[in-house]
Amino acid sequence: MRYFEDIEVGLTIEVGRHVVSKEEIVRFATQWDPQSFHVDEDAARESVFGGLSASSCHTYSISSLIFSRAAELKTKAAAMMGMKMRFPTPVRPGDELTLREVCLDKRPSRSRPRYGIVKSQASMVNGAGAEVMVCQSSYLVERREPAPAETTR
Amino acid sequence: MRYFEDIEVGLTIEVGRHVVSKEEIVRFATQWDPQSFHVDEDAARESVFGGLSASSCHTYSISSLIFSRAAELKTKAAAMMGMKMRFPTPVRPGDELTLREVCLDKRPSRSRPRYGIVKSQASMVNGAGAEVMVCQSSYLVERREPAPAETTR
Repeated sequence: MRYFEDIEVGLTIEVGRHVVSKEEIVRFATQWDPQSFHVDEDAARESVFGGLSASSCHTYSISSLIFSRAAELKTKAAAMMGMKMRFPTPVRPGDELTLREVCLDKRPSRSRPRYGIVKSQASMVNGAGAEVMVCQSSYLVERREPAPAETTR
Repeated sequence: MRYFEDIEVGLTIEVGRHVVSKEEIVRFATQWDPQSFHVDEDAARESVFGGLSASSCHTYSISSLIFSRAAELKTKAAAMMGMKMRFPTPVRPGDELTLREVCLDKRPSRSRPRYGIVKSQASMVNGAGAEVMVCQSSYLVERREPAPAETTR
C-alpha cells in the first residue's frame, strides 16, 4: 500500500490494461446509460460516433477497475474530492486500453493531519495511442506518520 | 426528444429519482471499484466515510440512469466533450437521490452546423438535501434545423 509519503510527484506509472469487448459495452450501457449509440450497432453507425462506443460511465469505471487490479500501486486513498474528465476519443469494441497515472502535486491536509491531498492525472489510451479518457482528480491519501501539529503564532 | 433549440438556459428541471440499496452499492463496487469502504461494511466504518458509501463511478452511473428514465427530457445529445465533477457528500445505503439539471449556456457549434454545444450542471441531492454529486458538462446536441452557413467576409 502506498501512503502519502510514497507518492512521487512527476513520476508516470503504467497502472495496467483492459480489453473492452462489444458485449461489455452493450451490457454496461443497457444497465446504466442506454443511449442508442452505446447499445445498438445500427443506430450507432448513424450517430456522430459512426459506430458503437462505450458510455462515459463505463470508460470511467474501466479506469477504476484497472486501478483495483494493480495491487502493488494501491494507495491508502480515503476520499475523492473532485475531478475534471475529458473523453477525447470514443472507446470501441475490442480496444485494449492502457491506463497511466502521474502525480501532479501533493500537499499535507491542513484540516486532517492524518491525510495528505494528492492531485493526479490518469490518462487512458487505446491501441493507437489516442487518449480515450484524461482525468485530473484530487483525493485524500493517508499519511504513514500524522503531520506534526502546526506551530501557530 | 429535445433538440438544441428546445433547451432553455437558466431553467432548472427535476430529472428524476433513484433509491440506492446497500446491495446495489456493494454489487457495483465489487465489479468496478472494490475498495474496502465500498464493499465491506466493517472496513467502511473504520474509514474516513464512517460507513459504507457508493463508488464515484456508481454515483455517476446513477445520474446517467436517472437521465435515461426521463424519456420526455431526452435530448438529441451526440457526444460529451468534457466535465467537472465533485462528490461533496457520500452516497449511503437507502439514500433517495434526486437529480436536477440546469442549462448554464448554449451556443451553435462552429465546426459542426448540425449541432449546438450545451453546457449544463447536474446536481444530485440526498433526502436531507445534501449534494452527493455536482457535475458540469459540455456536450453536442443536435439542432432541429442546421445552422445557416456563416457569412464570411
